[in-house]
Amino acid sequence: MPSPRDASPELQAAMDEVTQAVNRTIERLLPDTDLPEAPLYDAMRHGTLNGGKRLRPFLAIHSAFLFNVDSARARRVAAAIEFMHCYSLIHDDLPAMDDASLRRGQPTVHREYNEATAILAGDALLTLAFEVLADPETHPDPHVQCELVRTLAIAAGGHGMVGGQMLDLIAEDDDVEFDAGEISRLQRMKTGQLMAFACEAGAILGKASEPQRRALRNYAYDLGLAFQVTDDILDVEADPQDTGKDTGKDEAAGKATFVSTMGKEAAKSRAEMLAAQSKRHLKIFEGRAKMLEELADYVLERRA
Amino acid sequence: MPSPRDASPELQAAMDEVTQAVNRTIERLLPDTDLPEAPLYDAMRHGTLNGGKRLRPFLAIHSAFLFNVDSARARRVAAAIEFMHCYSLIHDDLPAMDDASLRRGQPTVHREYNEATAILAGDALLTLAFEVLADPETHPDPHVQCELVRTLAIAAGGHGMVGGQMLDLIAEDDDVEFDAGEISRLQRMKTGQLMAFACEAGAILGKASEPQRRALRNYAYDLGLAFQVTDDILDVEADPQDTGKDTGKDEAAGKATFVSTMGKEAAKSRAEMLAAQSKRHLKIFEGRAKMLEELADYVLERRA
Repeated sequence: MPSPRDASPELQAAMDEVTQAVNRTIERLLPDTDLPEAPLYDAMRHGTLNGGKRLRPFLAIHSAFLFNVDSARARRVAAAIEFMHCYSLIHDDLPAMDDASLRRGQPTVHREYNEATAILAGDALLTLAFEVLADPETHPDPHVQCELVRTLAIAAGGHGMVGGQMLDLIAEDDDVEFDAGEISRLQRMKTGQLMAFACEAGAILGKASEPQRRALRNYAYDLGLAFQVTDDILDVEADPQDTGKDTGKDEAAGKATFVSTMGKEAAKSRAEMLAAQSKRHLKIFEGRAKMLEELADYVLERRA
Repeated sequence: MPSPRDASPELQAAMDEVTQAVNRTIERLLPDTDLPEAPLYDAMRHGTLNGGKRLRPFLAIHSAFLFNVDSARARRVAAAIEFMHCYSLIHDDLPAMDDASLRRGQPTVHREYNEATAILAGDALLTLAFEVLADPETHPDPHVQCELVRTLAIAAGGHGMVGGQMLDLIAEDDDVEFDAGEISRLQRMKTGQLMAFACEAGAILGKASEPQRRALRNYAYDLGLAFQVTDDILDVEADPQDTGKDTGKDEAAGKATFVSTMGKEAAKSRAEMLAAQSKRHLKIFEGRAKMLEELADYVLERRA
């Protein structure tokens, strides 16, 4: 495995472009307000405009590119997915969950405001994600809107992201020992399904064929798992200055990670294998999905 | 104001029928599971199948009756609204919010399970509400599905229920004094908007005319406020055996209530006025909305 490196200049430029575009969309969807409930919106902005990598927006926007989707529509969907991701981080960081004080080098939402506000900010972001998707501005065809809403709900709910988070809590129990297969299922639910939705959303917006949609979904599942395995590795060996959060947390919390289950070296091979496999799914696009391919290499080799 | 009484036999029968029907639908949408994440589903069932009054399902189902909507469709929408309502109760009961130990005479979800599970169960129910609405089984016309999703998201999010909950927290601050107008706005957001959606959902399912839809929305706003004023009165004078929760809580928490702001007698007159006003909106249905009219009397005069 090569040593950690930065993204290629092309990928970095593409990532920066997505970050700027999606930040502008988020700011428009979460304007400043002087209503008495303003602290809620401040907390929502704090939890979403905090220098995130915007990996899921990148997946949505670059999947949409493959089908020549109008870029304003893709950006709205990307923002909705990021709302969903950020709500999950706000709730995961709560004292009753991971009890994290830092996120991307900033105080977490409940540290900057308070616990009740963080719970509500998460709830409001989760709800807003669906409001954005069901808006005709996102797509004029209600079939497309409904497909986006339904697919996101399935990816994010009890059979997806929230279910994965529940498994993560169960795995912390001393009496519970998850094997690598169970951890893969956990991670597929907790992280993979929302990443798969991000890619699938581009295909839904572009009314892609079923094989194209399936290819993107499978790409995202493998990429998501590679991402998670790398996260586990970074948790044990990264510099907190790079990741913007405390390291060694997973081990201290008794979390089920790929590193704790299979060891660091096997985890590294597994991540490499998954990244290579993710790229193979993109063959159906005959070289037009170059940025998504490059992302697979980057996810593996990132430092943070 | 007449002394508290039970519902009329016709209303009681109609309420029982809604309760049984919506409970069956909720059980079908939340089946028992032996997956490792089962505690999440147990908590979701605990938070939704706990003997609630099913006021919002009643509004949705009886509004839908006015337009001869297929009853299976109305029941699914009613269940989705109840998921939304119950998630808000689960999160409101958390230690960081109201710190309630009892709800309808049962331990609250975080007391029966734990705080993390309660947060996740709320998140999953909120997400499931949208999944149900965007499902073709709820309505085959995607215009209708999208209208339901978008209208619910607006009613439940930062400009609706969650925003109202934020205002409720702000009002607890000793330095903040809300007047009756501000409390009305708070309650309209916190309670009224979801009740308005319940009525509006019947109209959306039935492709009602705009005046019919507006009449139902206005009925629900006035009914919701009458309900809330009565709740505040019950908090100071009801028997905990009847309400299934501790009384005097609002005052102890320094909450902004109609009783604390305008006094008990003025609050009673206000509730009567609102209930009468709510019934006047139903005139457009020329006597066909009898159950909704009776509900307005009952809401005022209930004991719990």
